[in-house]
Amino acid sequence: MNTSQMQTEKRIMPADSHLTAPTRFTEAGGIRYAYRRFGAATGTPLVFLQHFRGGMDHWDPLVTDGLAAGRPVILFDNAGVVGSSGQAPDTIEAMAGHAAAFIEAVGVPRADVLGFSIGGAVAQALALRHAGLVRRLVLAGTTPRAGETQGSHPDVPEVAGHPVPSREDFLFLFFEPSEASQLAGKQFWERRHERTADVDPPSSPQAARAQSAALAEWATPRGERFADLAAITQPAVVVNGSHDIMLPTINSYLLAQHLPAAQLIIYPDSGHGSLFQYPGLFVAHVARFLDTPTAFT
Amino acid sequence: MNTSQMQTEKRIMPADSHLTAPTRFTEAGGIRYAYRRFGAATGTPLVFLQHFRGGMDHWDPLVTDGLAAGRPVILFDNAGVVGSSGQAPDTIEAMAGHAAAFIEAVGVPRADVLGFSIGGAVAQALALRHAGLVRRLVLAGTTPRAGETQGSHPDVPEVAGHPVPSREDFLFLFFEPSEASQLAGKQFWERRHERTADVDPPSSPQAARAQSAALAEWATPRGERFADLAAITQPAVVVNGSHDIMLPTINSYLLAQHLPAAQLIIYPDSGHGSLFQYPGLFVAHVARFLDTPTAFT
Repeated sequence: MNTSQMQTEKRIMPADSHLTAPTRFTEAGGIRYAYRRFGAATGTPLVFLQHFRGGMDHWDPLVTDGLAAGRPVILFDNAGVVGSSGQAPDTIEAMAGHAAAFIEAVGVPRADVLGFSIGGAVAQALALRHAGLVRRLVLAGTTPRAGETQGSHPDVPEVAGHPVPSREDFLFLFFEPSEASQLAGKQFWERRHERTADVDPPSSPQAARAQSAALAEWATPRGERFADLAAITQPAVVVNGSHDIMLPTINSYLLAQHLPAAQLIIYPDSGHGSLFQYPGLFVAHVARFLDTPTAFT
Repeated sequence: MNTSQMQTEKRIMPADSHLTAPTRFTEAGGIRYAYRRFGAATGTPLVFLQHFRGGMDHWDPLVTDGLAAGRPVILFDNAGVVGSSGQAPDTIEAMAGHAAAFIEAVGVPRADVLGFSIGGAVAQALALRHAGLVRRLVLAGTTPRAGETQGSHPDVPEVAGHPVPSREDFLFLFFEPSEASQLAGKQFWERRHERTADVDPPSSPQAARAQSAALAEWATPRGERFADLAAITQPAVVVNGSHDIMLPTINSYLLAQHLPAAQLIIYPDSGHGSLFQYPGLFVAHVARFLDTPTAFT
């Protein structure tokens, strides 16, 4: 962290929130990373790694502000995505390298990391390849390398590829068809748009292409299946909905089975976006996991 | 609830605990059921259904007292088991009938039910066949009817059949071989023996034979596999360790997948007795589940 960085950090008001935290920038390796930081002034910061094409506005304020009550929260855009400069790389490992560079640039010696969907894959690669930077992991709606594909909905690739995803696209991709899940999805959509100033620029077609390529590469085995997971020793909580049609739920079970120190939580009547369907419960579960000095107590 | 029952209830002191609550008796259908009640004076009582051959002393005081802080807790012995009179029946459904008779006899209009192992099977049958008596379910280390057997350890039948199970038997059956899990098991074993007055009489060979027969019957399909679960509409939390060698962990996943309103929690580096390995975390998870007016919020 350089001097101007320190001064930037000092100016951050603890009263900032998901809706009010200004978008800031930090540079590393020629990339200008967009980020927002808010919440408690002290504690291990929790860094959020976002889903396919998503920006900082796509998180649920109930989740980010809920978790920010107990620690600093840092949202950021990976290289080439939304507000960050550069080209999005086409492997999960390269994205993890950017995440590590960002965490170091923003002056965080050791972070907790919450990765959702492709962000959960990046979180795994980050914890494996930059182990010293990661204290604990929250892996939501995600999959290990070479995960199971049975159970994914055949319409997912087409819907997820819409140039500008609509509310109905998210209701299909992230939520269940049940009345309760759809209602929760509509409420999430309202919350997701509560921030109206200093919002994300659009995500680029290049980012979508690169992330698609990275996900395709992540779907292929490399060596013994799931063997990499044994080396991710950080305590982890793995979370998903009961019926994820994008990255089928059994992958969360497999992740927790193969990670050495992972607790699994599957929420009922929900899909890929279960953390946005049960924000209060999710925040309670994750806060307890992050707050206890010894994990799983 | 008759008059003498009401008087008995009134005499119960809220200060009672797992270690001090006296063993009481109530009669229904010619069976004299042994039970203990302690904890909060008001709230939906939580009725505990015990594992194979187990009595009331076999619960973990950290779990029972932890949950009793927020509600009345009721432990009891099913018909023919430990301190209750009669013959143990040889089907799960008949055991559920006895549990229903006991709950009514003890004057509880609607209970929360925590079933562990065979007690979790009884809890499912109780919730299905006596739905009005059950508000919410906690199913720990258990299996649906016709569950998966792959993953069970070949030594389980012999070890579980020892006439008097030893500490080493429990360390094998309920915990993982890891140092951390074995240590937690030894600590559980100490807690489990803290109660030294008014303790359980031994479990009978007839109870063991009948429960074994009931488990064998429960392992056979009846109609479409898992179809019964769709009719258990009570909110449920399904809990297990990551590597249950008695009722393999995948059964907990299957239970949560097929119950209409179930949340799954799998704890790391643990087995059948995960609730005794992580008593603090388990109590926190279950208390939140039971305490919220709307489940899963």
